[in-house]
Amino acid sequence: MIAENTLEERVAGALDRFAIELPSWGFANTGTRFGKFFDPTAASTIEEKIQDAGQVHKMVGCCPSVAVHVLWDLEDLNHAEELVDLASVAGIQIGSVNPNLFQNQCYKYGSLANPDPEVRRHALNHCLESVELAQRIGSRDVSLWLADGSNYPGTANIRHRRDWLREGLCAIHEHLNAEQRLLIEYKPFEPAFYHTDIADWGMALLLSRDAGPRARVLVDTGHHYSGQNIEQIVAWLLQDQMLGGFHFNDRRFADDDLTLGSIDPYQVFRIFHEILLYEREITGEADIAFMIDQSHNLKPKVEAMVQTVITAQELFAKAVSVNHDQLVSCQNRGDLVGAEECLKQGFYRDVAPLIKEWRAARSLPPDPLLFLR
Amino acid sequence: MIAENTLEERVAGALDRFAIELPSWGFANTGTRFGKFFDPTAASTIEEKIQDAGQVHKMVGCCPSVAVHVLWDLEDLNHAEELVDLASVAGIQIGSVNPNLFQNQCYKYGSLANPDPEVRRHALNHCLESVELAQRIGSRDVSLWLADGSNYPGTANIRHRRDWLREGLCAIHEHLNAEQRLLIEYKPFEPAFYHTDIADWGMALLLSRDAGPRARVLVDTGHHYSGQNIEQIVAWLLQDQMLGGFHFNDRRFADDDLTLGSIDPYQVFRIFHEILLYEREITGEADIAFMIDQSHNLKPKVEAMVQTVITAQELFAKAVSVNHDQLVSCQNRGDLVGAEECLKQGFYRDVAPLIKEWRAARSLPPDPLLFLR
Amino acid sequence: MIAENTLEERVAGALDRFAIELPSWGFANTGTRFGKFFDPTAASTIEEKIQDAGQVHKMVGCCPSVAVHVLWDLEDLNHAEELVDLASVAGIQIGSVNPNLFQNQCYKYGSLANPDPEVRRHALNHCLESVELAQRIGSRDVSLWLADGSNYPGTANIRHRRDWLREGLCAIHEHLNAEQRLLIEYKPFEPAFYHTDIADWGMALLLSRDAGPRARVLVDTGHHYSGQNIEQIVAWLLQDQMLGGFHFNDRRFADDDLTLGSIDPYQVFRIFHEILLYEREITGEADIAFMIDQSHNLKPKVEAMVQTVITAQELFAKAVSVNHDQLVSCQNRGDLVGAEECLKQGFYRDVAPLIKEWRAARSLPPDPLLFLR
Amino acid sequence: MIAENTLEERVAGALDRFAIELPSWGFANTGTRFGKFFDPTAASTIEEKIQDAGQVHKMVGCCPSVAVHVLWDLEDLNHAEELVDLASVAGIQIGSVNPNLFQNQCYKYGSLANPDPEVRRHALNHCLESVELAQRIGSRDVSLWLADGSNYPGTANIRHRRDWLREGLCAIHEHLNAEQRLLIEYKPFEPAFYHTDIADWGMALLLSRDAGPRARVLVDTGHHYSGQNIEQIVAWLLQDQMLGGFHFNDRRFADDDLTLGSIDPYQVFRIFHEILLYEREITGEADIAFMIDQSHNLKPKVEAMVQTVITAQELFAKAVSVNHDQLVSCQNRGDLVGAEECLKQGFYRDVAPLIKEWRAARSLPPDPLLFLR
Repeated sequence: MIAENTLEERVAGALDRFAIELPSWGFANTGTRFGKFFDPTAASTIEEKIQDAGQVHKMVGCCPSVAVHVLWDLEDLNHAEELVDLASVAGIQIGSVNPNLFQNQCYKYGSLANPDPEVRRHALNHCLESVELAQRIGSRDVSLWLADGSNYPGTANIRHRRDWLREGLCAIHEHLNAEQRLLIEYKPFEPAFYHTDIADWGMALLLSRDAGPRARVLVDTGHHYSGQNIEQIVAWLLQDQMLGGFHFNDRRFADDDLTLGSIDPYQVFRIFHEILLYEREITGEADIAFMIDQSHNLKPKVEAMVQTVITAQELFAKAVSVNHDQLVSCQNRGDLVGAEECLKQGFYRDVAPLIKEWRAARSLPPDPLLFLR
Repeated sequence: MIAENTLEERVAGALDRFAIELPSWGFANTGTRFGKFFDPTAASTIEEKIQDAGQVHKMVGCCPSVAVHVLWDLEDLNHAEELVDLASVAGIQIGSVNPNLFQNQCYKYGSLANPDPEVRRHALNHCLESVELAQRIGSRDVSLWLADGSNYPGTANIRHRRDWLREGLCAIHEHLNAEQRLLIEYKPFEPAFYHTDIADWGMALLLSRDAGPRARVLVDTGHHYSGQNIEQIVAWLLQDQMLGGFHFNDRRFADDDLTLGSIDPYQVFRIFHEILLYEREITGEADIAFMIDQSHNLKPKVEAMVQTVITAQELFAKAVSVNHDQLVSCQNRGDLVGAEECLKQGFYRDVAPLIKEWRAARSLPPDPLLFLR
Repeated sequence: MIAENTLEERVAGALDRFAIELPSWGFANTGTRFGKFFDPTAASTIEEKIQDAGQVHKMVGCCPSVAVHVLWDLEDLNHAEELVDLASVAGIQIGSVNPNLFQNQCYKYGSLANPDPEVRRHALNHCLESVELAQRIGSRDVSLWLADGSNYPGTANIRHRRDWLREGLCAIHEHLNAEQRLLIEYKPFEPAFYHTDIADWGMALLLSRDAGPRARVLVDTGHHYSGQNIEQIVAWLLQDQMLGGFHFNDRRFADDDLTLGSIDPYQVFRIFHEILLYEREITGEADIAFMIDQSHNLKPKVEAMVQTVITAQELFAKAVSVNHDQLVSCQNRGDLVGAEECLKQGFYRDVAPLIKEWRAARSLPPDPLLFLR
Repeated sequence: MIAENTLEERVAGALDRFAIELPSWGFANTGTRFGKFFDPTAASTIEEKIQDAGQVHKMVGCCPSVAVHVLWDLEDLNHAEELVDLASVAGIQIGSVNPNLFQNQCYKYGSLANPDPEVRRHALNHCLESVELAQRIGSRDVSLWLADGSNYPGTANIRHRRDWLREGLCAIHEHLNAEQRLLIEYKPFEPAFYHTDIADWGMALLLSRDAGPRARVLVDTGHHYSGQNIEQIVAWLLQDQMLGGFHFNDRRFADDDLTLGSIDPYQVFRIFHEILLYEREITGEADIAFMIDQSHNLKPKVEAMVQTVITAQELFAKAVSVNHDQLVSCQNRGDLVGAEECLKQGFYRDVAPLIKEWRAARSLPPDPLLFLR
């Protein structure tokens, strides 16, 4: 290689391709099982959600799409085109489509893993409609999270439920077109408290492989056990080309759905680092969807979203700034302290000025949060 | 002592004094933040809840009282007497009074620990009304759980909030009459995800001591970190005479609110054992309120409650059956295996026949769950 | 089916086939990183360990084999036959062979996943010797636990290490004969604190499949995150015919290596239940090795082992006593409380008399622990 | 206030008073229960350890003292003066004195909480010697960590052990002179796996209060449950003037003893922030001992220590840079995002240039790690 890119160039190039999807439900009032605190600025209709998402994208320039939750955002397939129009007016696109398999009363004992074939059929139909919706609006990813599981030992046949689930996923996969992907999320606890049918990345991986070649695993950063090394899971999924995307959020104890980087920013940085290191080795880009999935039930909605996006950009730029040559060299000669310091330098590097330059060059407000407030 | 009581006598005596309070909200539909599954048999009015509680007591004979949640069960103090009458008709009494300090929109940033003195006053008034309500209905315990805390680092002054909380608790304590107690609950997470103002038993103990001589700590078995030794906390609180009572439930990961003994029955047994061992040493009874606090959102309400009560009785009777003399003797001579086996023998002892005898002698159905179903 | 077996027959039949392997290292002094407390009765030579194992088998009748740790128990392959003779004299056989890939100074940065090809070759050679040793002594299972991992972010390439590991496992597998199996253990933490190369069952499964058709996953009950549902993992591995065996022990917080069933006996019972339920459905026997792996560093060695074996037998017999027909029927009609009670009845069933009968019929001491003491 | 200090002045002033104590055992070879990897540069004698500590202090200028472990570093009291001389030659002082209450075989069932009065007396004598040693060498803090606890339910009387422990602590406290302090550490697990006699900060606080007015709680950052909010504990202890000091290290899962800030640097920063915020309010300095307690068993010893100290300085300087006025103002008006951003700005602020200036002004190498390597 004749000329190394400068850090400025590398960061700018990385930010050019860094996109993160907003969740429509992130602009609405959300809460905990103990109640909801209402934010007067929160969106209540899909129109307002899409407008809010468009507003965020205008300020940050890296959120070209908004994910939708089928039941919450859309009454039926006939409104698909309206959704596209709304997004278009707001300057964005509709992103991943999320079926809802947990709110209907029929899902009391599960959806695709329900012992009752009627309920499984109901759930499957809803998923197939979601696949069709995604096709109509030109969205690539159908993103599946199941609340399925059981609350008490002895009440469910874990293996039969897996079989039923597998059947459903295969049926959904069959209806995908050549561009579409099926993202399968895992979660070890809540709202099923004893066993969750897709409890961890291993189960999601096996089910994805069974479902078909366009199924991938979706990593929600809050869906892990305390102390689990998430970046290792990411590294394995990357290596097997089974990583479909992320739902980003942060947490202290359980699936707290706090804003990204608010509790453990170093971990998010390490996840980005594993992706970039992988891309360096394959000299190509990993095809991964970055998505936000938070409920941040106390912060003002748009403000929280802008804060989140900025944080994601900064942590990504920091990861981009890691000196891979130096890191690999330290690793190769067993220089633990050197390797660690090299990584940490990336994390602590002040990339804010570089990001401001990048924004200025794209006519974006240099400090979107300040601009908003 | 001339004559040792037989196991039969000890168990019967223990069951005679074993009482566990039912929660009115345990008969209503509850759910998770992802939704509620409706049970057609669930109670929706306070009348129905109290009737259900009375029905349970009739079958098991050891649930003479039902706890009430002020906001959910009662519009204002003027209905206090009606509550008492309803309970009386149902053959039970109104038990502990639970103020609600988390649902009102003003509690977004906390209740008694809110930075806004207006909100603190509002919360305090609600608590004082609860104290008065308890006095009117002749209930001893006001049971306080606060959802107070913060979701993000930097957003709250932990020490100021503690001061405000202390002030509030002192003010509440001042209004107690000589029979009343103030029970202070702790919980390390949810719904405040970064910090919870009363996070653990140590904080609850310090606040209880500050509040006054009739304040006690309330242990909710689901409000602990993974792997925490709950029975040790119980032993310490007993020794300091600061244990006010329990909210019983079970869980796998977080505060899952599953039915008692459904996941880790040995732990419940060990808690009962610590209490009984303490009572053996003081040759008296510990003054502790046993209460159920579960949401068991999939099981039929009354059925789940009967199952819970029966389980509690059985685990208590098993703990009663532990041979204390033998245990102490093994402990004293460093016989680890002997001591452990002695404890385990209690846990595995089949006490069901003894409990059936006890029920028969009191004209209760020998198998209340079967009777109900 | 014309005649249902009685519970007595079912328990006796189950005990007849229930075997659990003893670990040679379980008879030696062990400790924590803070020190070792010496037990005067502990074994120090392989002769003593095998004698102790034989003594245990004589008392309980269900421990026909003892696992060996290559470095600790054997200087070189030439002593293989002596090992067999020693075991034969003691009335038992040599069971699974455990290579040691963590004590040699060269393993500072890993063994089969070490960046240094020399070290990897060294580790591989040791494993191949272990395979040969197993062949010489007629032992089926080579049981592999790796301490490999890294302690600090940035210091290791997770994916490269996985590749190296895979190569090594394939090479080991190639040397297996048609009877042998390679068991691959996983562990999420300790002694590698940042990342562990085989961190969970998903990683062990993928590596086992890569290694070859006679590789299986080994589940150590202490090698899980807090709150993880182990029996679900067992159910999945059974269904994929990838479960090779267990290392049994118990724990409260981390990998505490306490005696089986001492902290959470209901979990062990549920694991046995999942196996038995699976066997009922395939109407056959799962080919799983039950092994004990504990360090119980305070209890007397032989006593602790007898206690463990008895506990395992009891929990297995309890699981055998579960009424599968009734359970399935309850599950099928959504009777949660009925299904759970059915399972719990098995757990609380007093099987001790049946086990004593079984022992008497086989001229074993009815209470081996009492007999020993 | 007429003139605000500049950030440069504030950081320099903070670094002037920032001191962190080195552990003598941090320079020696350490390991896990699975073995020790030997570092050729590791110290083996107390002379070498003190020399290493002196070397670190010369490079970083903020480690004026080294903690000693009585059994490991000193044969008897008569060598106390030699220790002082060695330290003096190395340009440092002997810091806190750590009795060893876990290695002697007599401590199998505990030390100060042992049921055997002989063993308790032995442990007490060792502590009293440590107190005397501290007096002779002019060290203020006797720092007590007990491994006491039990491994199995039923084997210990938790309350009796607490009584014995309390007696011992009172006796130790009586022998303190007016300058000395007794620091009492807590730890929820390891090496006692079922119950630990001083399991959490609440127990340490109660015991410290019982012991006497010069007893304080020692917070080891690795001695907490997963997900526990350590900075809240720190805030409470500060407010009650019961915080004696810290043992700093980092961890992913259990008490991993990794180098400070290697896994979750934001948490260390938040701890420093709580201290500084408290000091701002009392307009004074909190009297807290900062100490390092790591085993970092793979990194070269001196290098790891220099890295740790630099990290501690940087995180402290970052915390100093937080704009308290702005933070408080945001907190007061319920501006969650503003408050959080204010805190985060401190964390991400590039303080390295300020620290380099500070070092240059004190004739220290601007980059001690580079200097060393």
